[in-house]
Amino acid sequence: MSSTYGKVFKISTFGESHGRAIGVVIDGCPSGITFDETFIQTALDRRKPGQSRITTQRKEADSFEVLSGVFEGKTTGTPIAMVIFNEDQRSKDYGHIADKFRPSHADFTYTTKYGIRDYRGGGRSSARETAARVAAGALAHLALREKGVEIFSYVSQVGSLKLEKGYESLDLNRIDDNAVRCPDPEMAQQMFDYIDQVRKNGDSVGGVITGVIRGVPAGWGEPVFDKLHAELGKAMLSINAVKGFEYGSGFEGVSLHGSEHNDAFYTDESGKVRTRTNHSGGIQGGISNGEDIYFRVAFKPVATIMTDQESINEAGEKVSVSGKGRHDPCVLPRAVPIVDAMSALVLMDFCLRARLNKF
Amino acid sequence: MSSTYGKVFKISTFGESHGRAIGVVIDGCPSGITFDETFIQTALDRRKPGQSRITTQRKEADSFEVLSGVFEGKTTGTPIAMVIFNEDQRSKDYGHIADKFRPSHADFTYTTKYGIRDYRGGGRSSARETAARVAAGALAHLALREKGVEIFSYVSQVGSLKLEKGYESLDLNRIDDNAVRCPDPEMAQQMFDYIDQVRKNGDSVGGVITGVIRGVPAGWGEPVFDKLHAELGKAMLSINAVKGFEYGSGFEGVSLHGSEHNDAFYTDESGKVRTRTNHSGGIQGGISNGEDIYFRVAFKPVATIMTDQESINEAGEKVSVSGKGRHDPCVLPRAVPIVDAMSALVLMDFCLRARLNKF
Amino acid sequence: MSSTYGKVFKISTFGESHGRAIGVVIDGCPSGITFDETFIQTALDRRKPGQSRITTQRKEADSFEVLSGVFEGKTTGTPIAMVIFNEDQRSKDYGHIADKFRPSHADFTYTTKYGIRDYRGGGRSSARETAARVAAGALAHLALREKGVEIFSYVSQVGSLKLEKGYESLDLNRIDDNAVRCPDPEMAQQMFDYIDQVRKNGDSVGGVITGVIRGVPAGWGEPVFDKLHAELGKAMLSINAVKGFEYGSGFEGVSLHGSEHNDAFYTDESGKVRTRTNHSGGIQGGISNGEDIYFRVAFKPVATIMTDQESINEAGEKVSVSGKGRHDPCVLPRAVPIVDAMSALVLMDFCLRARLNKF
Amino acid sequence: MSSTYGKVFKISTFGESHGRAIGVVIDGCPSGITFDETFIQTALDRRKPGQSRITTQRKEADSFEVLSGVFEGKTTGTPIAMVIFNEDQRSKDYGHIADKFRPSHADFTYTTKYGIRDYRGGGRSSARETAARVAAGALAHLALREKGVEIFSYVSQVGSLKLEKGYESLDLNRIDDNAVRCPDPEMAQQMFDYIDQVRKNGDSVGGVITGVIRGVPAGWGEPVFDKLHAELGKAMLSINAVKGFEYGSGFEGVSLHGSEHNDAFYTDESGKVRTRTNHSGGIQGGISNGEDIYFRVAFKPVATIMTDQESINEAGEKVSVSGKGRHDPCVLPRAVPIVDAMSALVLMDFCLRARLNKF
Repeated sequence: MSSTYGKVFKISTFGESHGRAIGVVIDGCPSGITFDETFIQTALDRRKPGQSRITTQRKEADSFEVLSGVFEGKTTGTPIAMVIFNEDQRSKDYGHIADKFRPSHADFTYTTKYGIRDYRGGGRSSARETAARVAAGALAHLALREKGVEIFSYVSQVGSLKLEKGYESLDLNRIDDNAVRCPDPEMAQQMFDYIDQVRKNGDSVGGVITGVIRGVPAGWGEPVFDKLHAELGKAMLSINAVKGFEYGSGFEGVSLHGSEHNDAFYTDESGKVRTRTNHSGGIQGGISNGEDIYFRVAFKPVATIMTDQESINEAGEKVSVSGKGRHDPCVLPRAVPIVDAMSALVLMDFCLRARLNKF
Repeated sequence: MSSTYGKVFKISTFGESHGRAIGVVIDGCPSGITFDETFIQTALDRRKPGQSRITTQRKEADSFEVLSGVFEGKTTGTPIAMVIFNEDQRSKDYGHIADKFRPSHADFTYTTKYGIRDYRGGGRSSARETAARVAAGALAHLALREKGVEIFSYVSQVGSLKLEKGYESLDLNRIDDNAVRCPDPEMAQQMFDYIDQVRKNGDSVGGVITGVIRGVPAGWGEPVFDKLHAELGKAMLSINAVKGFEYGSGFEGVSLHGSEHNDAFYTDESGKVRTRTNHSGGIQGGISNGEDIYFRVAFKPVATIMTDQESINEAGEKVSVSGKGRHDPCVLPRAVPIVDAMSALVLMDFCLRARLNKF
Repeated sequence: MSSTYGKVFKISTFGESHGRAIGVVIDGCPSGITFDETFIQTALDRRKPGQSRITTQRKEADSFEVLSGVFEGKTTGTPIAMVIFNEDQRSKDYGHIADKFRPSHADFTYTTKYGIRDYRGGGRSSARETAARVAAGALAHLALREKGVEIFSYVSQVGSLKLEKGYESLDLNRIDDNAVRCPDPEMAQQMFDYIDQVRKNGDSVGGVITGVIRGVPAGWGEPVFDKLHAELGKAMLSINAVKGFEYGSGFEGVSLHGSEHNDAFYTDESGKVRTRTNHSGGIQGGISNGEDIYFRVAFKPVATIMTDQESINEAGEKVSVSGKGRHDPCVLPRAVPIVDAMSALVLMDFCLRARLNKF
Repeated sequence: MSSTYGKVFKISTFGESHGRAIGVVIDGCPSGITFDETFIQTALDRRKPGQSRITTQRKEADSFEVLSGVFEGKTTGTPIAMVIFNEDQRSKDYGHIADKFRPSHADFTYTTKYGIRDYRGGGRSSARETAARVAAGALAHLALREKGVEIFSYVSQVGSLKLEKGYESLDLNRIDDNAVRCPDPEMAQQMFDYIDQVRKNGDSVGGVITGVIRGVPAGWGEPVFDKLHAELGKAMLSINAVKGFEYGSGFEGVSLHGSEHNDAFYTDESGKVRTRTNHSGGIQGGISNGEDIYFRVAFKPVATIMTDQESINEAGEKVSVSGKGRHDPCVLPRAVPIVDAMSALVLMDFCLRARLNKF
C-alpha cells in the first residue's frame, strides 16, 4: 500500500529499475481532460538519463505507452495506465553487487524488511521509479493548467553554490535554458562547472531545488493532518535522496518575531484579498490563501560514487564496494521535473478535494 | 477525511477550541496493550497551558476520559475514544474578532474554504486540537516502549539562540528539568530569559525542536511514497506553526560530497549491522536501518501577538486587530510533547505495518 | 480500521454496549448542512429499546450530544462527533456469561481474534453499536433530503409471513403507523401477533426488510468495485444478524430470460430517460439510472433466546447457556431505522463522490 | 478510486474491453510467495471466452505478462503488475451502437456520469475487466493455499434448474469435469442442454453460483463494517450481473426460530472448538469461527441478446438495438473462476489483517 499516493487523484506506481517495465495507474482521474501525449513525453524527456555530460550516460528512451482510460484524446474517468518498458535490462552488470550492501543505499534495509531484493540497479529503490511519477504528474499538470495553475521548479543550490536571489526576481521561463536547470545564467554556469569537476573526481554532490506554484485560488488544502504544506512535504520527502523540506519563511523564519513575520491582509484594487508580505508561503492553516506557494527541497549527494568504499555483504563480512561506469554526479538537474510532478500530484488531489468543502 | 492519520493505527481527531470537547478515536489499535492512564495524563500535562510564566495563562485542566476500547486495563482491539471536555468556553471573549481575519492565522482560509467558521479561539484551527494527538500519541508511545523504542524531543533553538551541541552529547533524560524543555541548562536559561523578554514586549518568537528516536529495529518504514522520513515529515508539518522539516544531514548535508556523506557499513562485535557515521538519520530508502533516527522541526513565531496589526474583515474592509490577554510568546516548550506524540503515531503505524512485510 | 465506513463522508463508530458511551465521528461532512437535532433524535428513538411489548424492555433513552463540528446550527466542514452516554452499565448482570460462548454470538470469535473480550452485553459486538450509525445516518439523510432523495425501509417478512405486495403498491408514509413497521395494516397485525407469540415462547424469529430509495439522479455510484449496489450490500450485511442482500430482481430474477429481464429505455414526455420495467433496481453497471432503487435484506432470528442451550466455556468445557430477562424476540422493527441509516450513509458518500466525475 | 479493492492486499485494475490492454497492480503483497505462473494462467483459461459452444466464441488467449514485483520466482514485497494485452481491438464492430444505450447495460449510466464513454464492447463496464481480478485472485489463492485454505465455486442453479443437494454432499474436485462447472454430472447435463437451447433462441438466462471456503482458521475477519461476510458480499456484488448474495442460512433462514437456528458449540476429540450445525456459514460477528464458509451468488440473465430491443440513443430518440454475433447465453460457467478470485482476494486481505489483531 506504500506505492500509492493521493486520496482522490490516486496513483499507484510499479516497476523495478531493470525489470520488464515501470508504470503507473491513476484511479480517480476525472473525465474530460485533454490528454496531450507530447506534454507528457516532454516531461519524461526532462528526467531521462543522458541529457548532458553532467548526467548519467545510461541509455533509456523513456517512451511511454497508454494502456487504458483515454478515448478519442480525452480521459474517460476510468483508470489510466501508463507504462514505460525498460530497454536496459542487463542484469549481468549487477552480479558484483548482488550480495553487497552499497553504503547509503537501500540494499540493507530492503533485504532486512523483505528477506529478498531485486539487486539489479537498485530494483524498486532506484530513482527510476520516479519516471512513473513524472508521467502521472504531467497529466495532473495538464489538468491544473486548465484551471490557471502554473508550476515551476529550479536548482537554487549545488554544493555550497547558493543562488541568493529569490524566485520573484528570476525569469522562471528560462529554467530549461541550461543543463543545470537554474534560471540564473551566471550561477548556472558556475554550477555546471562545479558538477563537471565533481564528476571527473568520481564523486557526487547535493543541492537544493526551489519550487514555486502560482495561480492556486484560496481554499485548496485541508485542516489538521492533510495540510497542503504537509502533503507537499511528504511528497517531496518521498523523492529519492531528499533530506529536508521547508516552505515560506522556513528554517530562517524561526528567528523572526511575530510582529515581523505576520503577513498583513489588505484588499487590492480589484477587490482580491492579498497579503503585504508572504512569509506564509501561500498557505495558512494548511489551506492556500491565493498568494504564491514556494518551498525548498534538500537533496543529499547521490550515494553512488566511483571510488572504493568500505561495506559488508549479506553474510556480514567486510567487503569493498566500487562504483562502475554510469552515474549522476548530481541528481538535481534531473530531479527538477520530479519536483514539478510531485507538486502537480499534490495540487491536483487538493483541487478535486476542494469540490467537497460545501454542501 | 483530513482529520484522520495513519494507515493501520488510524486516529481521527475532532473538536474546536471553544466547543463542547475535543477528542480522538483510534481505530486499529491492537488488543493487549496495557493502558496506563497516568502516562497519558502526564503527556497531556506537558502540553497544557499555564505551566510557567512563558506559556499562555489560559486555564484548562486537560483531563481526559476514556469512552471505549479499554477493558480491565487493557486495550481490546476495538476503537478507543478519548475525550477532553473544554472548560473554557467563554465565546463572548471572541466577539471582537468574529468577522476579522487575524494576520497569519487560518481565519481567512477557513472562511474561504467552508463559507462558515467557528471563530471562537480559532475553532478547529486552534492548536488545542493537538491535545487529542497527544493523548493518542501517548498510547502509541506506551506500546512502542514495550518494543524497546524510546522517543525524545527537545527545544534546540529559540529565535537565534541555537544549541550547537548534537543530541548525542546531551542527557535526554533532563529535557523536563526546565520550563523551556532544552536539556542543556545554560542554554535553557538563556532561552527562558529571551522568551520572557519577548513576552513582555507583547511579541512572539519561533524556534526549532529536535526529535530523536532510539531503538527502532531495522526494517520499519516503507518504500516509495510512505517512506518513514516522509511520514515523519508530514506528521511534523501538520503541527500548527511548523514551517520546515529535515532529518539526518538535512539542509546542511547538501554541501557534502558523496564520499564524505555516505555511511559505511560494518558489523559490530555483537554481530549487529551498524554504520560508522549516521548522515542517513537512521533511515535508508525510507526504511529504518537500526541507527538513531533524528530530525529537526522549524516553528514560526506564533501569530497571536499583543500589538495592533493591520488587517481586513469579512467584508474586505480595513480593520485593526489587537491581541488580548492570554497567549504563548513561544510555542516551543509546549510543542515538545506534540512532536513526541507525532513521532509515536508514525512509528506505531510502521511497527504494525512491518508485520505485513513477509508471507 | 474496521469501524470506519465511507470514502468521502467517512464515519468512525466507537463504544461498547455497557461501556461509558457509544458514538461516532464523521470526518468529511461538508459545511452548510442544517443540523436538525430533532430529526436525529427521532431516528434514534425509532431504534431505542422499549418501544412496545415486542421489543426488549431494556431502558436506554439514547439521547445524543454533539461535541464538535456544528456552529450556529450548521455543519462547519470539520469533524462532527456525536456521543450517547450509556445509562445501563450494570456489568454485574453479565457475570454468568463472562467466560461462556453464547451460541451464534460473537463471543468465541472475538476471544479467538483478540484474546480479550468485553463480555458485558456483547461489548463491541452488540447491536447497540448501530445507534451510532443511526445518528450519523440521520445527518446524511438530512443532507440528502436537501437534494430530493427519499429513503424508506419497512418490514416485509417476519418468519414465514411474507408481504407479497411490491413496494409500489404500499403507502410508504404509513411505515410507523404500527409497532412492526410494516405499512400494510393487516399484515402488520399478523406479524405483531406472531412475534408476540414467539416472545412468550422465549424464542426468536427472523425476517426481511425492504429498502426503497427515491429521487436519486442518474449518475451516482461507481464502476468496478464500488458499485452502488455492492456498497449497499456491504452496508446492509454489516448490520448485526443480516444474512443476505438482493436488489432489483434479485434471486428470483435468475430464472428469467434476458428478453424478459432487460429494461427497455424510453424518453418520457418531460424528456427524462426512463425504463419501462425496473428489474435493474435503479442501478446499471453500479451507477444509478434515475429509477427507484429497491432491495431486500434478510435478518436471521436473533441469537439471544430464553431457553437453555448447549455450549462451551473458554476452557472448552461443556456448559449450559440460559437467556435472561430482556431481549428482542424479533429485531426487525428496530432494524428499520438502521437500514435507513445505512442507505443514507451509502448514498451520501456517492452524492459527494459524484462531484468528482468530470473535470 | 473505485477500481481499487482491499485494505492491505490492495489491487487496482485498469483497462477497457477493446483498449490496448487490461491489467492489475497489487500493492501490498508480502514478499516470499512462490509465483506459480501456470496456476495463474490456468485460472485465466477458466474465464477466457471460447471454452465450449455455450460460451461466447470471441477469441482472446488471455495470456498474461508480469511487469514487476517478482524476482527469481518469488514475490519481492513490491507492487506486482500483470497485464493482458487485448488481441481483439476491432472497434469498427461497434459503430452501430456508438450512440445507442443498450438495455440493462451501463451505456446510459456511464454517459450520464462521465459525459464520455468508450463504447467499444462496453469499454470499462465490460466483464472483460474481471480477467484482471482473476489474475490477482489467483496469486492470492496461491498464497492462501500455503496456509491450508481451499476455495471452491460451482454453478448450483441455471434458470429454474436448481441443484437441491448441499455442497457437503458434492465432490468439489469435479467442478471442472463439465463445461457448466456443476459438480453433479446429471444436473450439469440438464443445465448444458438448457443453456444450449437458450443460445439457439438468441436469448440468455441467469443462475446461481455457490461458493465454499474451507480451512480458514477462527479469527479472520473484522467487527462492525468490514465483517468477513460483508466484504464477501461487496466483492461478489461487484461482479458484473450479480443481483444478490446470501451466506449461511441466508434468506431461507429467516423463517427459523432462534432455537432451531443457533449453532451449538462443542469441543471435538482433538480439542478443536466446533459447532453442531453451521447456519452461521462459518462466520460469527463478522469473524471466521473455523467452520466452512459458504454462500450463494445470484446472476441475472446477461443483457446482450440476439433479438431486437427497444431503446433510445444519446439524443433521446427511439432506436432499435440488435445483438450481433458473439455473446454468452449464460455467464455462470465463466463466472466460476471470478467468484473464486473474489473469494481469494477477500480472504487474503483478512489473512494479512489478522496479523494486526494483538500487540
